[in-house]
Amino acid sequence: MNKITRTADLMVPKVTTGPIAGSRKVYSSPEGHSDVRVPLREIALTDPAEPTFRVYDTSGPYTESDAAIDVEQGLPRIRTSWIEERGGVESYEGREIKPEDNGNVAGAALARDFPNKQKPLRGANGAPVTQLEFARAGIITKEMIYVAHRENLGREKALERAASALANGESFGAAIPEFITPEFVRDEVARGRAIIPANINHPELEPMAIGRNFLVKVNANIGNSAVTSSVEEEVEKMVWSIRWGGDTVMDLSTGRNIHNTREWILRNSPVPIGTVPIYQALEKCGGDPIKLTWELYRDTLIEQCEQGVDYFTIHAGVRLAYIHLTAERVTGIVSRGGSIMAKWCLAHHKESFLYEHFDEICDIMRAYDVSFSLGDGLRPGSIADANDRAQFAELETLGELTKIAWDKGCQVMIEGPGHVPMNKIKINMDKQLAECGEAPFYTLGPLTTDIAPGYDHITSGIGAAMIGWFGTAMLCYVTPKEHLGLPNRDDVKTGVVTYRIAAHAADLAKGHPAAQLRDDALSRARFDFRWQDQFNLGLDPDTARAFHDETLPKEAHKVAHFCSMCGPKFCSMKITQDVRDYAATLNSKEAGMTEMSEKFREMGGNVYVDAEQADAEAIKQSNRSLG
Amino acid sequence: MNKITRTADLMVPKVTTGPIAGSRKVYSSPEGHSDVRVPLREIALTDPAEPTFRVYDTSGPYTESDAAIDVEQGLPRIRTSWIEERGGVESYEGREIKPEDNGNVAGAALARDFPNKQKPLRGANGAPVTQLEFARAGIITKEMIYVAHRENLGREKALERAASALANGESFGAAIPEFITPEFVRDEVARGRAIIPANINHPELEPMAIGRNFLVKVNANIGNSAVTSSVEEEVEKMVWSIRWGGDTVMDLSTGRNIHNTREWILRNSPVPIGTVPIYQALEKCGGDPIKLTWELYRDTLIEQCEQGVDYFTIHAGVRLAYIHLTAERVTGIVSRGGSIMAKWCLAHHKESFLYEHFDEICDIMRAYDVSFSLGDGLRPGSIADANDRAQFAELETLGELTKIAWDKGCQVMIEGPGHVPMNKIKINMDKQLAECGEAPFYTLGPLTTDIAPGYDHITSGIGAAMIGWFGTAMLCYVTPKEHLGLPNRDDVKTGVVTYRIAAHAADLAKGHPAAQLRDDALSRARFDFRWQDQFNLGLDPDTARAFHDETLPKEAHKVAHFCSMCGPKFCSMKITQDVRDYAATLNSKEAGMTEMSEKFREMGGNVYVDAEQADAEAIKQSNRSLG
Repeated sequence: MNKITRTADLMVPKVTTGPIAGSRKVYSSPEGHSDVRVPLREIALTDPAEPTFRVYDTSGPYTESDAAIDVEQGLPRIRTSWIEERGGVESYEGREIKPEDNGNVAGAALARDFPNKQKPLRGANGAPVTQLEFARAGIITKEMIYVAHRENLGREKALERAASALANGESFGAAIPEFITPEFVRDEVARGRAIIPANINHPELEPMAIGRNFLVKVNANIGNSAVTSSVEEEVEKMVWSIRWGGDTVMDLSTGRNIHNTREWILRNSPVPIGTVPIYQALEKCGGDPIKLTWELYRDTLIEQCEQGVDYFTIHAGVRLAYIHLTAERVTGIVSRGGSIMAKWCLAHHKESFLYEHFDEICDIMRAYDVSFSLGDGLRPGSIADANDRAQFAELETLGELTKIAWDKGCQVMIEGPGHVPMNKIKINMDKQLAECGEAPFYTLGPLTTDIAPGYDHITSGIGAAMIGWFGTAMLCYVTPKEHLGLPNRDDVKTGVVTYRIAAHAADLAKGHPAAQLRDDALSRARFDFRWQDQFNLGLDPDTARAFHDETLPKEAHKVAHFCSMCGPKFCSMKITQDVRDYAATLNSKEAGMTEMSEKFREMGGNVYVDAEQADAEAIKQSNRSLG
Repeated sequence: MNKITRTADLMVPKVTTGPIAGSRKVYSSPEGHSDVRVPLREIALTDPAEPTFRVYDTSGPYTESDAAIDVEQGLPRIRTSWIEERGGVESYEGREIKPEDNGNVAGAALARDFPNKQKPLRGANGAPVTQLEFARAGIITKEMIYVAHRENLGREKALERAASALANGESFGAAIPEFITPEFVRDEVARGRAIIPANINHPELEPMAIGRNFLVKVNANIGNSAVTSSVEEEVEKMVWSIRWGGDTVMDLSTGRNIHNTREWILRNSPVPIGTVPIYQALEKCGGDPIKLTWELYRDTLIEQCEQGVDYFTIHAGVRLAYIHLTAERVTGIVSRGGSIMAKWCLAHHKESFLYEHFDEICDIMRAYDVSFSLGDGLRPGSIADANDRAQFAELETLGELTKIAWDKGCQVMIEGPGHVPMNKIKINMDKQLAECGEAPFYTLGPLTTDIAPGYDHITSGIGAAMIGWFGTAMLCYVTPKEHLGLPNRDDVKTGVVTYRIAAHAADLAKGHPAAQLRDDALSRARFDFRWQDQFNLGLDPDTARAFHDETLPKEAHKVAHFCSMCGPKFCSMKITQDVRDYAATLNSKEAGMTEMSEKFREMGGNVYVDAEQADAEAIKQSNRSLG
């Protein structure tokens, strides 16, 4: 009470910092590229025979041990020199911020503007700007080098193994290499099979690739809405969702303060930020889709291009002629963008202005290297509506638009459903690959049943894992609150972790060369009763530790050679160890069978020992032979 | 303080009673069988145009509105007269309870015995006892009539639809009929493709079927262990897990009071109870696998047969010759039963006594109609060990044992893995069908990655949905605590609901004739903003309602024609409704295009109305046309 309230406490967004439990952030540079510093998360293990384990890291500088985060300053602009070096861009006085950009709010209701803004860049003189243009010109960008190094994590180690994971997997025609070279990245981008979403006005970005021949990625959605939330909450949501593994973040804000909120997010985001520009355009015309115009939309695109948004969802496939195809659906049009465009088309009885002006949209996006995420405005919102004519008619149009965008030099990915029963998932992937020339697919789930509100991270995690296996490049998360409300902090984390599971399960099934290394390391820790290592190698060490502690809270139990499932007197893993010792001796010709049987019987008396007495050394010895 | 503590408060297990939110328990009898009362759960909907919706119900009398539950009395013995009518059984003085049945505890540490016990029954004079024997003899039992009526739920309604769900699904060679007759059930049981686990000493049972051509079922595990839990907790865990949809429950207790705890569970369980008898046998020899004998095991089987256990997990496929195949594994033998048997075999250097005495085991189990659940003691405990020679060698032996058990008149299902990456799941199903003559498969997950301790309900829910689709008849749940600790009340619920999602997603994908009715009803409710109906049609109404209330707690919002995701000013579902109205008019020849465009524009002004003003009638009207 009566404490002094500092302005800083009120104004400065508070974000979560510090390493994830049991790990530290490290940076690694490919040979000859000291300016390419790729972040990794290094998990220390308690067994001296096990090397530290490195994992892909999306969390940005926030998880550095001595993170000096100043959200008012924004993250370091690591890409600025790369962009300037390759040239072809110009700095200019950007579009002036208008009151409607923030919903015409003023005074106390207006979110503070980011204090450290820079003038925007744009492509000039028709020189290459986009990663696709450079790739086609045979130029390997720093972003491509970065991505290759980032994706290669663990592959050298994987190559040491006798059996190739690739041969063991099933990738349904993908072309995953044993090793990723910058040239491979360039080639995939040039062919349109991968994108590196990286607006030249988002130099804070740590580049990443989205493509079927790379690790499966996860997107997390955040956004304020008219009903709840604040600027601070939105920035923290971004930081929170990348902490747990979000590869990209979509800002789906509606309502007020959209512009300023987005600026804070972008300046502090190490991951690509996507938006749906029609949401903001709609706010600018008072929420009435009928009043939308191409000019308003175009102005919004430029506003967001200048801010640094990395990809735009554009529902240009919702054509007038398709709208009536949704009339008999159980759940009609459930995509917000899709329904806005449907309404506009019908009210004016005109073809979609997004479709009509698609060339011009490409020209704008090319100048900043904003990637297309061609929206599936007619995606099914229920099992009943899956794979219907409306959905597939739109997908065919998205294929047509993909080719136009590619011709214009733009990077493209394609959005997919939605609600789809398991038996209808694969046809979505196959049709997308065929119609869209292997442009990366980016799906929402799909949800494999409609009957579990409150658990849609799970109904959709099932579909996401499957479609990821079949070839989807990025999975848009669904939280437990889907259909019910706005996700809170815990929901965001649950959604991201669920989708990391789906993405990893897909990588494993595809035979990604290094994916199984983490499963193996964790399983060795589990078998070896290295509880701390089991927790720390998991996707969420905090939850694993907390769950363990609910039953066995004592610190001593963390090294206990039993788990609470069986209790100290009986443990299957301990017995297995005995079996292994026996089998080893079985192979030695010296010992006769009867002898061994005797020996084992003697040993038996010492099997049920408690943690303190356990022969830790023997188990470790065996584990070494597994490594 | 100083309140009188009644003995009843201390002693009588407290169980959860009362209907699941928004529904009531009803009973339905097939024509001509008034003594076959099949439970259903009827969900009332708020739209007068929507009929009440009936769902399959596993929860027993506990969810009756006026449930008069007396756990000391046990549930009504509904099957006693059926069993007596068909004859061939005798009542006899059962085996005497020995101190070691309860771990030699006495006095206050001994759990109170169930007070209302009956003498056991067993088959006599070689007359048919098992459902398989009756089925083969062409006799349709009351249990088969019960199961047919139970499984048929919704199919009459489904048959009214133009398109067959079966034609729309992919069942990988299953033979799911449009309609289930008692004769179909008999035939499936006779062929060994389905089982009705129903010990003649568990007359409280509400019969259910496990088979590829029936609805996919879910098992929940409960059990006390040396470390924690009490009798009361175990009975409540059973009631709690069937409340949320457990079709069977396995009592995996280790430690003390096993016999008495099991008696309380059985006498109060309307679902089949499974056990792993070797766990109790191990307790009886002081926890030392080497001291196990056939006589001790045999005595334990009879003890549990007399109590009424419906199926036994028996790891008779862990043969001496296979054990060394696990030596190179990352996680060795992780099955408790498997490792006990492996240790015994190696210590004595003898073939498994379960394998050697398999004929005699069959004779015992047949006399009580206890079904086999042939255990996969060599299942993989990590991704690295999936589908290895040890696992498949055991599966081949299980196939051999299946035929022996069938010859003896016993019902059989087969247990499956475990940890399996997505690309290796289907081969498990295909091989099981081939080796085991289509006997029902009963799998634990499988977990599709090892890297998410704390989230293994999800890593395994993915695999469970897939293998259920491929043909697995029952899915053994995995809770979030898997690998970390004992599940609590919330974990059990989460596990069961997750697995109900997996089972339903599988039913949908297989094209089960009536499965999609629930998805459709829920999706209509969702589209119609009938929030209460959306909650109540879901698998967990309480959680759905609580999640919704976190963002929009007011009662008025339950009928709000917007959801918190978009806010009141913009709502895609509202717009879709406008599209639908327009499309309907589009089809009418009277109205010209321009006219309609005008009309729609006028309408537009009224689109953003708040909940109170919304034209609820118009939306309902449209929904009726969907029904």
